[in-house]
Amino acid sequence: MDKIKISEDFKAIQDHICKELEIEDGKGKFKEDKWERPEGGGGRTRILQNGNIIEKGGVAFSAVEGPTPEKILNKLQLEKADFFATGVSIVLHPESPMVPIIHMNIRYFEMSTGVKWFGGGIDLTPHYVDLDDARYFHQQVKATCDRFHGDYYPKFKKWADDYFFIKHRNETRGIGGIFFDRLVSNDPVEMENIFEFVKAIGFLFPKIYRHFMGKNKNMVYGEREKKWQALRRGRYVEFNLVWDAGTKFGLDTNGRTESILMSMPPMANWEYMNQPEKGSNEANTLEYLKKDIDWATI
Amino acid sequence: MDKIKISEDFKAIQDHICKELEIEDGKGKFKEDKWERPEGGGGRTRILQNGNIIEKGGVAFSAVEGPTPEKILNKLQLEKADFFATGVSIVLHPESPMVPIIHMNIRYFEMSTGVKWFGGGIDLTPHYVDLDDARYFHQQVKATCDRFHGDYYPKFKKWADDYFFIKHRNETRGIGGIFFDRLVSNDPVEMENIFEFVKAIGFLFPKIYRHFMGKNKNMVYGEREKKWQALRRGRYVEFNLVWDAGTKFGLDTNGRTESILMSMPPMANWEYMNQPEKGSNEANTLEYLKKDIDWATI
Repeated sequence: MDKIKISEDFKAIQDHICKELEIEDGKGKFKEDKWERPEGGGGRTRILQNGNIIEKGGVAFSAVEGPTPEKILNKLQLEKADFFATGVSIVLHPESPMVPIIHMNIRYFEMSTGVKWFGGGIDLTPHYVDLDDARYFHQQVKATCDRFHGDYYPKFKKWADDYFFIKHRNETRGIGGIFFDRLVSNDPVEMENIFEFVKAIGFLFPKIYRHFMGKNKNMVYGEREKKWQALRRGRYVEFNLVWDAGTKFGLDTNGRTESILMSMPPMANWEYMNQPEKGSNEANTLEYLKKDIDWATI
Repeated sequence: MDKIKISEDFKAIQDHICKELEIEDGKGKFKEDKWERPEGGGGRTRILQNGNIIEKGGVAFSAVEGPTPEKILNKLQLEKADFFATGVSIVLHPESPMVPIIHMNIRYFEMSTGVKWFGGGIDLTPHYVDLDDARYFHQQVKATCDRFHGDYYPKFKKWADDYFFIKHRNETRGIGGIFFDRLVSNDPVEMENIFEFVKAIGFLFPKIYRHFMGKNKNMVYGEREKKWQALRRGRYVEFNLVWDAGTKFGLDTNGRTESILMSMPPMANWEYMNQPEKGSNEANTLEYLKKDIDWATI
């Protein structure tokens, strides 16, 4: 694999996604911060705040390299060597509680010792679970997975259920999606295929999210829904700060804090012992925050 | 030490604090949840929401016991045995950005093997640092420490600076206070003295916080200060979920989630790259979020 080619393709995906989101939003514009990592490499963090539809969203690209930090070596049980890592990371928090929160990440990692792999994922966190939306999301993701390998969707869907899980709440972050890591092959053709798959997820992202932006942006909501949204954002914070390996790792290894925490929502709320009324939309949503739901056929 | 006596005294401190806070608040009332721990013991979590001054506050007592969880044994490097732990924990988030956030904790831990110690701390997180308030706080804490041991304040003040530190922001959570752990003595008279010190911190808490509630509650503020408060609450969340050993530990060992996370604020906000204007009250506050400031004489 040519790491320069990979990072250039990832950059192009970042460009494409930002353009698509700006078109659909109709008002918000991404602002870019270019940053450099003292030990090598850097990134382009792009943030959109106070758009028509997106209240706070980040679409970040980075390509960093240098001596592998001690913590990464220990965690991955690798011998001392240089590393290179590039990726695109996205979290979007919409203004409307009727539009879901979304997250997408694609990444490539290699070491001077020859170790290399792709990773990534896309998952949806609706403030209110809507079965049609959930089915659409999973069918889209499944169709893209299926173009590359029949095992991908079932395997990566289960991985997402396990990964995007808020253990201390015994609930999933949202309706899941896919998550995968250390995807690699000794066969160069197959490795190329994995790269194409990862890029396909990158290009699928704006298609899916524009669909939800367009479809749900005019749905009516009031104070009750805004309150619920703030509580669900609180849960999003809990997942990202307590359980998300990527976030913990970035903060642990002196990553660029403002880029790592671009996933944090605007206006999140915590209420003690909030329990939605039985049969309410809020209570129904909680019923669906479970693993092992076959969303693609629900 | 008689563990029953300790937990009864802690309960009395919880009662005293709740009464004092209700009097000063003038409107809010604590609601109590009694809970039991399947493996032994339980607690009384008391929460006040939407008071006149306190927007969301928790004053929790617990006394738990049973076989020591594996994670605690590993972390403290102790041999297998039964444990007993009791404590009072408090976090108060005021409605007004001119009133500081406060935290207090006193605790006692013992094991059937004979290990036993006290721990605790009290620290202040003003949304806006005011030097007179900061000096008052540290002088009060120092005076109480000095009644028991001349080393306590300097040692525990430094410990708090190091403990209440948001590493990924390179800033302290607030203006610190004191933090101490594993306080123990082989001399029964000295151990009794430690217990009295811990209780004195418990009784000092409402005195200090009533002072700030009464003094600052009518200070004028507007939208700008509320916005800043929400950002500072975001930082509070970051500390508690990413760095606070107690919170992590509770979530890791299947503690009662709603009691552990009673420290979470209402309405916290994250803004990308928020940078207050030079010379503003907000920027000045950031200048003071540093270790090793001699607050008692500032």
